[in-house]
Amino acid sequence: MPKASRFSVVLTLALTLCAHADEGMWVYNNLPLKQLQAKYGFTPSPQWIERLMKASVRFNNGGSGSFISANGLVLTNHHVAADALEKLSTPEHNLYEEGFLARTPADEKPTKDLELNQLISIEDVTSRVNAAVKPEMSVAEAIAARRAAIAAIEKEGTEATGLRCDVVTLYQGGQYHLYRYKKYTDVRLVFAPEFAAAFFGGDPDNFEFPRYDLDMCIFRVYENGKPVQVDNFFKWSAAGPAEGELIFVSGHPGRTSRMFTAEALKHLRDFQVPYTLGLLRRREIMLQQYSMKSEENARRAKEELFGVQNSRKVYLGQMSSLQEGKIITAKQRADYQLRAKVAADPKLQELAGAWDRVAQAQARAKELAVRRALLEAGQAFNTPLFTIARHLVRMAYEDRKPDSERLAEYRAARRASLLLQLYSDAPIYGDLEKAKLTDSLSFLVEVFGAGDGLVNAVLRGKGPDARAAALVDGTDLADPRVRQLIAAGGVAEIESSEDPMIRLARLVDDPARAIRKQFEEGIEEPERQAYGQISKALFAVYGTSVYPDATFTLRLAYGQVKGYSEGSGPIAPMTTLGGAFEHEKAHGGKDPWKLPESWRRAKDKLKLETPYNFVSTADIIGGNSGSPVVNAKGELVGLIFDGNIHSLTANFHYTDEKSRAVSVHSAGMLEALRAVYGADALVRELTEGALAGGDACPGKLAGK
Amino acid sequence: MPKASRFSVVLTLALTLCAHADEGMWVYNNLPLKQLQAKYGFTPSPQWIERLMKASVRFNNGGSGSFISANGLVLTNHHVAADALEKLSTPEHNLYEEGFLARTPADEKPTKDLELNQLISIEDVTSRVNAAVKPEMSVAEAIAARRAAIAAIEKEGTEATGLRCDVVTLYQGGQYHLYRYKKYTDVRLVFAPEFAAAFFGGDPDNFEFPRYDLDMCIFRVYENGKPVQVDNFFKWSAAGPAEGELIFVSGHPGRTSRMFTAEALKHLRDFQVPYTLGLLRRREIMLQQYSMKSEENARRAKEELFGVQNSRKVYLGQMSSLQEGKIITAKQRADYQLRAKVAADPKLQELAGAWDRVAQAQARAKELAVRRALLEAGQAFNTPLFTIARHLVRMAYEDRKPDSERLAEYRAARRASLLLQLYSDAPIYGDLEKAKLTDSLSFLVEVFGAGDGLVNAVLRGKGPDARAAALVDGTDLADPRVRQLIAAGGVAEIESSEDPMIRLARLVDDPARAIRKQFEEGIEEPERQAYGQISKALFAVYGTSVYPDATFTLRLAYGQVKGYSEGSGPIAPMTTLGGAFEHEKAHGGKDPWKLPESWRRAKDKLKLETPYNFVSTADIIGGNSGSPVVNAKGELVGLIFDGNIHSLTANFHYTDEKSRAVSVHSAGMLEALRAVYGADALVRELTEGALAGGDACPGKLAGK
Repeated sequence: MPKASRFSVVLTLALTLCAHADEGMWVYNNLPLKQLQAKYGFTPSPQWIERLMKASVRFNNGGSGSFISANGLVLTNHHVAADALEKLSTPEHNLYEEGFLARTPADEKPTKDLELNQLISIEDVTSRVNAAVKPEMSVAEAIAARRAAIAAIEKEGTEATGLRCDVVTLYQGGQYHLYRYKKYTDVRLVFAPEFAAAFFGGDPDNFEFPRYDLDMCIFRVYENGKPVQVDNFFKWSAAGPAEGELIFVSGHPGRTSRMFTAEALKHLRDFQVPYTLGLLRRREIMLQQYSMKSEENARRAKEELFGVQNSRKVYLGQMSSLQEGKIITAKQRADYQLRAKVAADPKLQELAGAWDRVAQAQARAKELAVRRALLEAGQAFNTPLFTIARHLVRMAYEDRKPDSERLAEYRAARRASLLLQLYSDAPIYGDLEKAKLTDSLSFLVEVFGAGDGLVNAVLRGKGPDARAAALVDGTDLADPRVRQLIAAGGVAEIESSEDPMIRLARLVDDPARAIRKQFEEGIEEPERQAYGQISKALFAVYGTSVYPDATFTLRLAYGQVKGYSEGSGPIAPMTTLGGAFEHEKAHGGKDPWKLPESWRRAKDKLKLETPYNFVSTADIIGGNSGSPVVNAKGELVGLIFDGNIHSLTANFHYTDEKSRAVSVHSAGMLEALRAVYGADALVRELTEGALAGGDACPGKLAGK
Repeated sequence: MPKASRFSVVLTLALTLCAHADEGMWVYNNLPLKQLQAKYGFTPSPQWIERLMKASVRFNNGGSGSFISANGLVLTNHHVAADALEKLSTPEHNLYEEGFLARTPADEKPTKDLELNQLISIEDVTSRVNAAVKPEMSVAEAIAARRAAIAAIEKEGTEATGLRCDVVTLYQGGQYHLYRYKKYTDVRLVFAPEFAAAFFGGDPDNFEFPRYDLDMCIFRVYENGKPVQVDNFFKWSAAGPAEGELIFVSGHPGRTSRMFTAEALKHLRDFQVPYTLGLLRRREIMLQQYSMKSEENARRAKEELFGVQNSRKVYLGQMSSLQEGKIITAKQRADYQLRAKVAADPKLQELAGAWDRVAQAQARAKELAVRRALLEAGQAFNTPLFTIARHLVRMAYEDRKPDSERLAEYRAARRASLLLQLYSDAPIYGDLEKAKLTDSLSFLVEVFGAGDGLVNAVLRGKGPDARAAALVDGTDLADPRVRQLIAAGGVAEIESSEDPMIRLARLVDDPARAIRKQFEEGIEEPERQAYGQISKALFAVYGTSVYPDATFTLRLAYGQVKGYSEGSGPIAPMTTLGGAFEHEKAHGGKDPWKLPESWRRAKDKLKLETPYNFVSTADIIGGNSGSPVVNAKGELVGLIFDGNIHSLTANFHYTDEKSRAVSVHSAGMLEALRAVYGADALVRELTEGALAGGDACPGKLAGK
């Protein structure tokens, strides 16, 4: 980062989460209306806001999307859909690689375990949650009391409305809001381009710009066997946005650390990020080794490998910005300024110790975090077969407790979502799981030591590879029917089960629960309380017009379509379809710069000057993938799919100097659907906003 | 490892380094004559032994080779030659990738900085070295005294004979032998096949069998501008070895840990190997990321990336066998048995504490090893530009001391070899060095912490990437003439230099020397003394017919051409040239299973039934790459280039159950040279043992 920008960074961080430039991932019940009016002269109507909120959907497996027709079409990224596409793929029909187009509704392919959430309403429940926690309570009591209060709120909400109800912790513990979602689980695949078009340029171009990617995928949501009818969806803008135009991004940014204190950022730099990078590197190498053995292996591991590579790039970017130092220096100054104001205000004295308490929690975290990651987060047992076993074991024991005392993921309000995953018949490949489990068991031995009692109990005298083979070969949990049978048997079934993966999950359960408890009481709860106080200080000093850190809940960001400058010169904000062919040529047409055959064939039919990808200043982060980009009229003008390399600091702070969100342009998507894929019926539905002739009968969808 | 083999493992380890089956990497002055006679009825003559010794050569950059004609032709692996080939390559003429054949002597290409060593004689100097160390000496005094004694022996040797003289520490400190080498530095490239033929099957097939690789490269050694005339060379066997035939491998195994105590093996398992794997994984990812940006980047990094991947696979194999547990259990038993015999023998009481002293040294090593690796081994500054700067700085200061007090690598006896490397005009690519240095500086920050004083001094307020760019862009050391000028200026030049890399090397020099000293005194010296005692115990209990751990000095191994069994069934000991085409077809002809165009064109001319690669039970390890395989008549029948996956435990123990050395067959090499490469003159020289017509005039080499 050049020195010229230093002041703006400092200023941004000094005010922590007060908006500057186009900064902010705003909650829908506290939108930056003043800033929008002041900078862009735009004030959205309540109807505009409600439509944006309800036309946005969350992909529960980690991405965003939006309704784009009255008949339930949902747009997201190919890479958000990757997990679903991979689960629908076989060696013979590799949809993930080769793409898919349903020409008739009967062809629309039900996905295995996708859950979409549509936000219906938000309610601030902070005072009710906080009231449950009394000052005289011990840490353990405070956690239990808060958990019970949250569980009660969620359960009441679900019972009252039938909606999925999640209490979300905002401002790292400063506020609690109840989010009510309508849930969709009958989600069918309508269109996916080839991997080579969606991820053109592959890992080398990932987080770069200019880009030429058709990173899109279209599903249709069904209810009761029919396409769902929705009132709120985005009309497709055939023209898309112009340079400089105001745009909005409505999506689900996953997690940011902008409210973190300087000490918490140092903990990330010195411990959490290096640890995570080490883990990602070993998984990347392991998956590469597995993949290179055959093309079928490569197919099986491709989506997981891509995910690991993507994360590795994100964390390397974070590491680079943290080690560079300016972000932490600026945050130290911001902490200092806020603490000085707290110290000067007699009413805020009770908040003064919060920063030190965060620092103390970080120091303790080093001892506990790795053990927690291995045992409780399951990094020592890196296979869905273990995750399934863990859920079966815990569900049995948790279900014997009152709902309010259960671990959060086993509460009644979340059961349907859990079972959707647990009983999914997505394929599980034994050889891939052996490779993953071998590597992760080996990691366990490295970290805990070969003489450790738990390690010995896990390995049972075998090496990691032999033990992984015995576990994967011995378990019956790859079969969803077996999972249902075991779940039906409750604790008795669990305790008598001879399935080796169930037995492993039982073996690990007590130590895993113990470290989880220790971490919650020793780290998370003190942090939550401390950040609650820091939030109070922030609100007291800077007012309430601040946005909370990202929590994978719906947020609104805004900005402009705008280029930027690299050392090499100015970067134009848009690319064209024709640019994809030029980019291919510049790289000799070698993988991953090889456009699919369909594009080569369609080249003469394509309007090559059509805009394809574009950048904007909207404030996004991972989880925003698949978010609709809409204009002031509320029309869909683009589809978020990436950030440029400079945006990798977005976890810690926003800057509009070079950091950019990268989207597919609505005009480019439409032109590709038309000229490359001949998806005429789909194009008609998108441009008309509903199935042909306004008729909701899916029989007419494909037009032939 | 199946349980059936457990006993043989125990037995092997129980006797530590006494030979079983075809075990052993034998020194030429203590060959296993009795075993050979007993098992194979073969007793080599002194002449046979001398020829084997003198026809073998060491590639000083880490491999083995052999003379194969009276006129100085030397055979080694393509992958041993990779460094030399890469340094001779340009974007326009990528010899490493495309291969090379000198059809006339004028075409033979001088390499940049290759040094070959030919062992002339060995002398046991143990008593002289040990006599220098008195019982009353402190650790530091003992190190200095031993170093002075060794320096004196080496210096005397060089002055008396003109030969390169190295005192080698054997039995981890039990003996010291003086090795006298004739040194060759005018080494010219004669023949290399394409990378795709040499490393057919690439990383997936590496350490596997069956194999189909032409991993060969031929150089010619010159002296005074003419091909050197050698008396000792291997006659080429056109037929090669048959199944079951006795064969010998004369080469330079790099390093083994077979004498390690159980505690030392645990240290490897728990600390050293995981650390090394972490480092290798991060380098592999970094080099991959660099390589994928362009084909030219891929070319620049290819050889280094291959080396990292190869090492990663070796260490993963070691980790797997160490974590599996049986090796360490067996070694614990072996330690126990030997200690019991020592305890029972009043004459051996002084040796009783040795095992505990090794264990104590390992415990201390954890604290010091990483700091030493980063600063002294330079892992924090992973670029040859730093290595060059380090040598220039240290050479200036060391040269002011008496020879016997210098760090070993700066002694007069080793100066010529050092300068050959230091003044090499091998290309250095700035962008590659920036990527490597960025990654390694980032590693330094991770390990030492961002607040560390030395880290701050190294980074000078910049992030690792900006600092790496400033260092690489700012230094003039890429130019060998600059290095010579700086070296000529001595300490005055060093201290006034404003070259940022020189200044960095100076900055780091004191802390690096300090940790080196601490490690030598706290770990290496106590270990050396303890292993010296353990050696005495071994000799006393089991006699002197034991071989020392590998030390990258000339060793003789022996064994039989012999297949083995996998779970999938028996593996035949030999493959054929035709098998390469079948293997290509089985993998769809995709990279890395794509034979070069030359092979496709030659297919009809090739005798496809010719043996190509074969396995044998000879006891080898890394460093043996390029070793000649010779038959009882002393003819060259093969060329070691790999071990199978089971051989990755060879660092710790030998077994002939499944562990195999992998070689190129002499008949296959000859057939490929003839039919694929049309290297008629070369074939004639190999089969006739000298240049055509016995004429040493290189003008006739190419025959046209």
